[in-house]
Amino acid sequence: MATKRETSRPKTATTFKKTTPVSATAPVKIALLGFGTVGSSLARVIAVSKLPGVELTHIYNRNVERKRVSDAAKCVPASVVWTENFNDIVNSRAEIVVELMGGLDPAEGWLKKCFAAGKSVVTANKQLIAYRGVALSRLAAKHGVQLVHGAAVAGGVPVIPGILQGLGGDQITRISGIVNGTCNYILSHMETGAEYAAVLADAQGLGYAEASPSADVDGFDARAKLCILSRIALHAELDPDAVATQTISTVEAVDFAYAKELGCTIRQVSRAQLDAKSKLVHARVAPMLVPLTSPIAWSHGTQNMVVTSGRFGGDVVFSGHGAGGEPTAVAVVSDILAVAQKSVAVELPVRRREVTGEFMAPHYLRFVVNDKPGIVSGIAGALAKVGANIDSLLQRPGYPKHSLPFVITTEACLTSTIEKAVAAMAKMDCMLERPLCLQILTVDDKAE
Amino acid sequence: MATKRETSRPKTATTFKKTTPVSATAPVKIALLGFGTVGSSLARVIAVSKLPGVELTHIYNRNVERKRVSDAAKCVPASVVWTENFNDIVNSRAEIVVELMGGLDPAEGWLKKCFAAGKSVVTANKQLIAYRGVALSRLAAKHGVQLVHGAAVAGGVPVIPGILQGLGGDQITRISGIVNGTCNYILSHMETGAEYAAVLADAQGLGYAEASPSADVDGFDARAKLCILSRIALHAELDPDAVATQTISTVEAVDFAYAKELGCTIRQVSRAQLDAKSKLVHARVAPMLVPLTSPIAWSHGTQNMVVTSGRFGGDVVFSGHGAGGEPTAVAVVSDILAVAQKSVAVELPVRRREVTGEFMAPHYLRFVVNDKPGIVSGIAGALAKVGANIDSLLQRPGYPKHSLPFVITTEACLTSTIEKAVAAMAKMDCMLERPLCLQILTVDDKAE
Repeated sequence: MATKRETSRPKTATTFKKTTPVSATAPVKIALLGFGTVGSSLARVIAVSKLPGVELTHIYNRNVERKRVSDAAKCVPASVVWTENFNDIVNSRAEIVVELMGGLDPAEGWLKKCFAAGKSVVTANKQLIAYRGVALSRLAAKHGVQLVHGAAVAGGVPVIPGILQGLGGDQITRISGIVNGTCNYILSHMETGAEYAAVLADAQGLGYAEASPSADVDGFDARAKLCILSRIALHAELDPDAVATQTISTVEAVDFAYAKELGCTIRQVSRAQLDAKSKLVHARVAPMLVPLTSPIAWSHGTQNMVVTSGRFGGDVVFSGHGAGGEPTAVAVVSDILAVAQKSVAVELPVRRREVTGEFMAPHYLRFVVNDKPGIVSGIAGALAKVGANIDSLLQRPGYPKHSLPFVITTEACLTSTIEKAVAAMAKMDCMLERPLCLQILTVDDKAE
Repeated sequence: MATKRETSRPKTATTFKKTTPVSATAPVKIALLGFGTVGSSLARVIAVSKLPGVELTHIYNRNVERKRVSDAAKCVPASVVWTENFNDIVNSRAEIVVELMGGLDPAEGWLKKCFAAGKSVVTANKQLIAYRGVALSRLAAKHGVQLVHGAAVAGGVPVIPGILQGLGGDQITRISGIVNGTCNYILSHMETGAEYAAVLADAQGLGYAEASPSADVDGFDARAKLCILSRIALHAELDPDAVATQTISTVEAVDFAYAKELGCTIRQVSRAQLDAKSKLVHARVAPMLVPLTSPIAWSHGTQNMVVTSGRFGGDVVFSGHGAGGEPTAVAVVSDILAVAQKSVAVELPVRRREVTGEFMAPHYLRFVVNDKPGIVSGIAGALAKVGANIDSLLQRPGYPKHSLPFVITTEACLTSTIEKAVAAMAKMDCMLERPLCLQILTVDDKAE
């Protein structure tokens, strides 16, 4: 079903002026798949910006009539064709299709049809790019079209174009950062003493978290983004399912109090590191203790932050609004301009790499126990058995003896080593819940 | 004079593997103008990296024999032709010329000759790009070649490619940041109580500051970079000579003590802001009080930091190593890869804009007086006369009455207004030196 209204040409298409002799041609026609938060922001940005040579011609959405009469649609030029039939898009004269539906299916199949029809695709679909990005890029190249996905990681923060065009000359060995705004909103608000459940409910009320928050809080969203960043920065293609994740839902208010005593805060950190010798990529998405002196600790609310570490250029920090309609629309429009101007990104060889969750790092262990003699000795014994050294023991006053939270930090040891000790400690009678084990991010930490 | 040694092909040229069907051709030949810190780092990065399809073939330098036998030259392949005759470069088969000489002359004329000879140019020359960038880009386009200058601002921090490829979809209204590593080294070291002269001497000893430091400390280096950023981010072409600058050399240790009491530190800030109505660009390079909560306060040592503020995407922060051989070489090599792969940057229309140094901002005034009754009343009178309101008065204990530093901060007022008051106050008998007047950066400040 295609609903055509009027045919007046959108104002945005006539304001393009090139200052240099790049051929001034007819505006590039854009079709949009998905008119949700980002899609409607995109339409608004295109409408109010003086965008050189870009014309929105089609919008696809399920139940399109509901979208077409929404307030968000008011900025859409009357000339735009609204449809709930994907074939209208494939058969249209649109040269660039913007895919904002998310998910693997039907997005993957539809993108392939777009390529076959000679259309370039701009997408913000992190799952699709993480799982199928390399194959889809090859297919796009085969058809002589582009697949661009600057919006798939960190929304309005130009991490992907910045790395592709500005850090290709470095050898990036490590990336770490905060790429899930929902988790960052929750954890940075827990800093002030609030409990996880309360902050999650707030975030859901504000639209920052889904009703079913697992993709965010359990790390699957961040994992997809980390795999895309690994491909771009480390030139390492990873299997997203092989990347270790740890939920933030077991972090409690008390952990922020202890973290503060250690000069740290807690963030969902996504990190990947290419080992020069083994060629393994050490990767993990997990809540971690982050020193307050690290740029990663500076992100608050829904902000994103990515730090790349290069052999020649050292650390480079990118930060800003990683989510939300308009910041993401900025990334999408920037990609549209690139495709419209035939500005093809620099491309370096990517290799398939095996992935491990192992890191050599100090760890934070938080226990909640029914206090009685011998507990510390039992824990110390479990740590000694795996060869992990205790660095500090912290016990804040004011908690009841029958449900006492306290903390032990260890010197650097392997993830698998500390997990073995945690499994043993979890079986101790006194433990009221499974000990929480968090990696402590250090500035010069090394993967092992 | 051309000194050719051996003709063995450099190893770096044979490791290129494309994963997608981009045409695999012979390596792109690179000629280098200038074998100083960045030039030798560039040769090293090319040599040790597995750089796809890049071959260094020529190096030009004055007194080239001295360079050729230096330690830094050890990483240069034996096949490279060393010369002190620029014509050898023009007449070579190099397709990309990397200009690292700096300054307007002879660089400008030489670039034109390169373009005419069909050679693209990658340059880190901020003065040349600030003063002649638009005209040179047009000339390059006319000859069908590229002029790329990602290394001209913020060295290894991909601010220019990040903005060009990732923020073209936004309407950036403001840029602010730290783009001179020398000043940042000096000011961030003065935070700990050291005096300007001592830190400058240190910086000179370490090679961070020139023997004649004016270009850095008086703001001329940063001004050129600010003009380039204005062109890229605000699409506003400015006359660099029209941008107001203020030296950091009048900032003293006591100012950091007072700044700290105000929750601030002091940095050389470069800022430019496009007024939507007047279309004037408000621009200034000056030491400013920066709140410790601002990302601009986070830069230490020679780090650079640029914050862009966009209508849709909000604030985006880029930071990292803005100077030094290897970080700058990363930017140069990234640009070389872009030219070699014919990856042409997105281009948006740029307009010539008038520039003003006016900002509406609170100000910090530091006086050194021979203390006697009536001083504060005299100062307050001078401020009242121009209509500036006092916000706070700070006087730290422990200073001698005959040379007493104290501070007044004002509420937001125009730069020209406060400067009028300062000129009047400077004439007061009690003043031992001209009052220091610094803008206080606020998060939501507006240009007027």
